[in-house]
Amino acid sequence: MFITFEGPDGSGKTTQSRLLYTELQRQGRDVLWTREPGGTAIGQKIRALLLDDPAARAAPPAELFLFAADRAQHVEEVLRPALAQGKIVICDRYIDSTTAYQAGGRGFAADFIARLNEDSTGGLSPDLTFLLDILSEIGLQRATRIKADKFEQESLNFHRRVRETYLKIAENNSRFCVLDGNRAQETIFADILAVICSKLNK
Amino acid sequence: MFITFEGPDGSGKTTQSRLLYTELQRQGRDVLWTREPGGTAIGQKIRALLLDDPAARAAPPAELFLFAADRAQHVEEVLRPALAQGKIVICDRYIDSTTAYQAGGRGFAADFIARLNEDSTGGLSPDLTFLLDILSEIGLQRATRIKADKFEQESLNFHRRVRETYLKIAENNSRFCVLDGNRAQETIFADILAVICSKLNK
Repeated sequence: MFITFEGPDGSGKTTQSRLLYTELQRQGRDVLWTREPGGTAIGQKIRALLLDDPAARAAPPAELFLFAADRAQHVEEVLRPALAQGKIVICDRYIDSTTAYQAGGRGFAADFIARLNEDSTGGLSPDLTFLLDILSEIGLQRATRIKADKFEQESLNFHRRVRETYLKIAENNSRFCVLDGNRAQETIFADILAVICSKLNK
Repeated sequence: MFITFEGPDGSGKTTQSRLLYTELQRQGRDVLWTREPGGTAIGQKIRALLLDDPAARAAPPAELFLFAADRAQHVEEVLRPALAQGKIVICDRYIDSTTAYQAGGRGFAADFIARLNEDSTGGLSPDLTFLLDILSEIGLQRATRIKADKFEQESLNFHRRVRETYLKIAENNSRFCVLDGNRAQETIFADILAVICSKLNK
């Protein structure tokens, strides 16, 4: 079972995905938590280029292909092997982030992004995706409280387009479960657990 | 005018492209020499990941997207601005390297690579491409004399596929000028200069 967590910056997806990982481990399940970008050794270096390095300002198409490279490596080195071993895989950001940020935020054509997502994953799609939805103003406030990475420094309008794109993808796709991320952590996590229990007991 | 140099490892394309750069500078022309991967600050880091870092073994699709990221950045940051300023741009490796090494060498589908070359360059094609052709055995001997990078460590068969693919692309494309790279440096350079003179005087 391949579960992804998606959402705007500051939506709490990392917290929630880690909570789920801990809970499934506690239940004695064979579970892996990972993330994009940065889920492999090469991915860590790509992540640094993409998010942190102030000297390295990737042009939008270069940024896009760096995400694709990170993902291709992650799929081959981490995701496919773990799924083949029967693990539950929890991934913090995956293809929908590219659609939301690069098609929605940056304005790349949606069909081009869809093709690139297909090419970089060999078609590996999640079974279940939690989208933590949050008002862009609140997400940005939360996300930039400590130190903002390159995406968190983008304008409010950029983040609104990201959010709208997420909601649009989710509308047309049955693997999505959209959760109101403005609520308390425990309340959101209770919703997530309820969905997971029903899926795992099927 | 956008001129690229292509060829297998050890074919002498870096030497010849530098010779041409020096000669055109001597003639007082506004000329830029650059290369892929590594023609930008981000590209330098990508180049290190691709060629040198022994811990970073990119899976073939990740490698492919890293080259595409390097190229997209290079096109936007270096090639298009220089061409817009009317410079003669000499580039050591470009899209045909991806076709030869990734389609020919690694076995990716040719139409997928053609599409990626288009996507990563926005369709920026060279006006003239020198292909330095050399027997794979000799090229490899030359290239690995000092310190072999990851591609130079590939098998002889890999390098034969690279060479064959180069020759096949060149056959069908009028921008190519194929030169026998087994000859003396000065002889090859005289051929290159003759072609360039005739083009520049047109």
